[in-house]
Amino acid sequence: MEVAAALYRPRAWILTIGNELLVGRIVNTNASWLAERLTLLGAVVRRIVTVADDLDDIAQSFREAAAAADIVVSTGGLGPTDDDMTMEGLALAAGRPLVLHPEALRMVERFYRARGYGLTRERVKMAWLPAGARPIPNPVGAAPGAHLWLGRAQVFALPGVPAEMKAMFESYVVEALKPILPGLCVREAAKVYRGIPESSLAPLLRRAARACSDCYTKSHPKGHEVNEPVIEVRVMASAESCGEAESKARRVLEELDRLLEEAGSVGG
Amino acid sequence: MEVAAALYRPRAWILTIGNELLVGRIVNTNASWLAERLTLLGAVVRRIVTVADDLDDIAQSFREAAAAADIVVSTGGLGPTDDDMTMEGLALAAGRPLVLHPEALRMVERFYRARGYGLTRERVKMAWLPAGARPIPNPVGAAPGAHLWLGRAQVFALPGVPAEMKAMFESYVVEALKPILPGLCVREAAKVYRGIPESSLAPLLRRAARACSDCYTKSHPKGHEVNEPVIEVRVMASAESCGEAESKARRVLEELDRLLEEAGSVGG
Repeated sequence: MEVAAALYRPRAWILTIGNELLVGRIVNTNASWLAERLTLLGAVVRRIVTVADDLDDIAQSFREAAAAADIVVSTGGLGPTDDDMTMEGLALAAGRPLVLHPEALRMVERFYRARGYGLTRERVKMAWLPAGARPIPNPVGAAPGAHLWLGRAQVFALPGVPAEMKAMFESYVVEALKPILPGLCVREAAKVYRGIPESSLAPLLRRAARACSDCYTKSHPKGHEVNEPVIEVRVMASAESCGEAESKARRVLEELDRLLEEAGSVGG
Repeated sequence: MEVAAALYRPRAWILTIGNELLVGRIVNTNASWLAERLTLLGAVVRRIVTVADDLDDIAQSFREAAAAADIVVSTGGLGPTDDDMTMEGLALAAGRPLVLHPEALRMVERFYRARGYGLTRERVKMAWLPAGARPIPNPVGAAPGAHLWLGRAQVFALPGVPAEMKAMFESYVVEALKPILPGLCVREAAKVYRGIPESSLAPLLRRAARACSDCYTKSHPKGHEVNEPVIEVRVMASAESCGEAESKARRVLEELDRLLEEAGSVGG
């Protein structure tokens, strides 16, 4: 076993909350953005779950996530309306009450004051967090996030508005996770192959993948399997140094090229 | 309670399988497409789950889905490569062996024959289905899908290539589900409101939503909450007739307009 494979990579679950996702009104770009960021930081995203704006569904999915993962990042359900109930679901999952958090209230108040607005019941609602949670500052919008431990998992509840979610992930979550992330460098190598059906490429790719035991190799058909076979092969590798990660990923593609040449097929 | 609310709407789970989703390499447009189609057909999508190309993860997610839903639609993991293991995971979840299905084998063979290719181990792999499953014809690509009962849930395993998944959903799944779908008509009404922060709109929207007890009302902030508040309000309604569904959805927006006028705010 190589050194890189022995490093502990924390398991992450992503929870995306919102009816609009379950009726297909919007595409879940938050999930793919978070998945990429977490992977690049050295976590292994094991599951992405989308649930409705429903208290029991939210609480249950937090419980399942905390039982299986080291890191849980949720998006959505932090706004002022009554169907925003992520904090309530998180409190239910943790078996703790919701409390009006003084620091969170100051964040919300400061946001609206600066824009000439006062506090209303709906705005104050955004400052109620599960007891024991730390508010996560929102540099873009009004709703603070929450950071708390649920069993052995760290949970980060972020808003569903992409700009807010991303800003809070970069400014808070990345820092908070530093102590448990392995500091791995992740690199990807990709190459497009034309004129070979995926089913012909598959056995060669399987052999080539052996060139790197902890690389992640996948073929993506980009056109019709036979009429116009265009296949992109992507290899992801991680290592303690970026140079090492890159050469590990490249090694698989080089081996695939060698096998294709050996087989007399059309490459590149 | 209205008549429409008493209709049984089957619960659906969507399972999207593939490492490329968990590392954020691609955005899950299959999930949003399926969610919209299932909703419009009268099902209620309760959960969307994304898992890795991992046998145990796939089997467990099928088990969870079948225990909670009436309809389970999966995408991905049906191709010729070894990391395509949806059929194996589904067989494991069902406690049945994988069998080489003669009809599925004919489908695969026909696809490659027509293009001048023979069968290889990788191509034959696509014809192994869980015992008792029906193959779902693939009018676009090589890999057949599978339709089977898992407990009280109907499972449809479709490929991950969007064009194949969509074609198989329309040509097979829609027909297969007809007996259990309520034949509801779903309609949506939407309106954009400018100059009102979401937190000001929220209490009025909550009151307006009472105009239709089984409508689904949601506000979507499209710009910054205060600096440039642009909010889209969307109302979805379903009913046995399309006219009824449309008028139910419109009723909520009309009530919201009335309340905004009453409050002297800027509308439309």
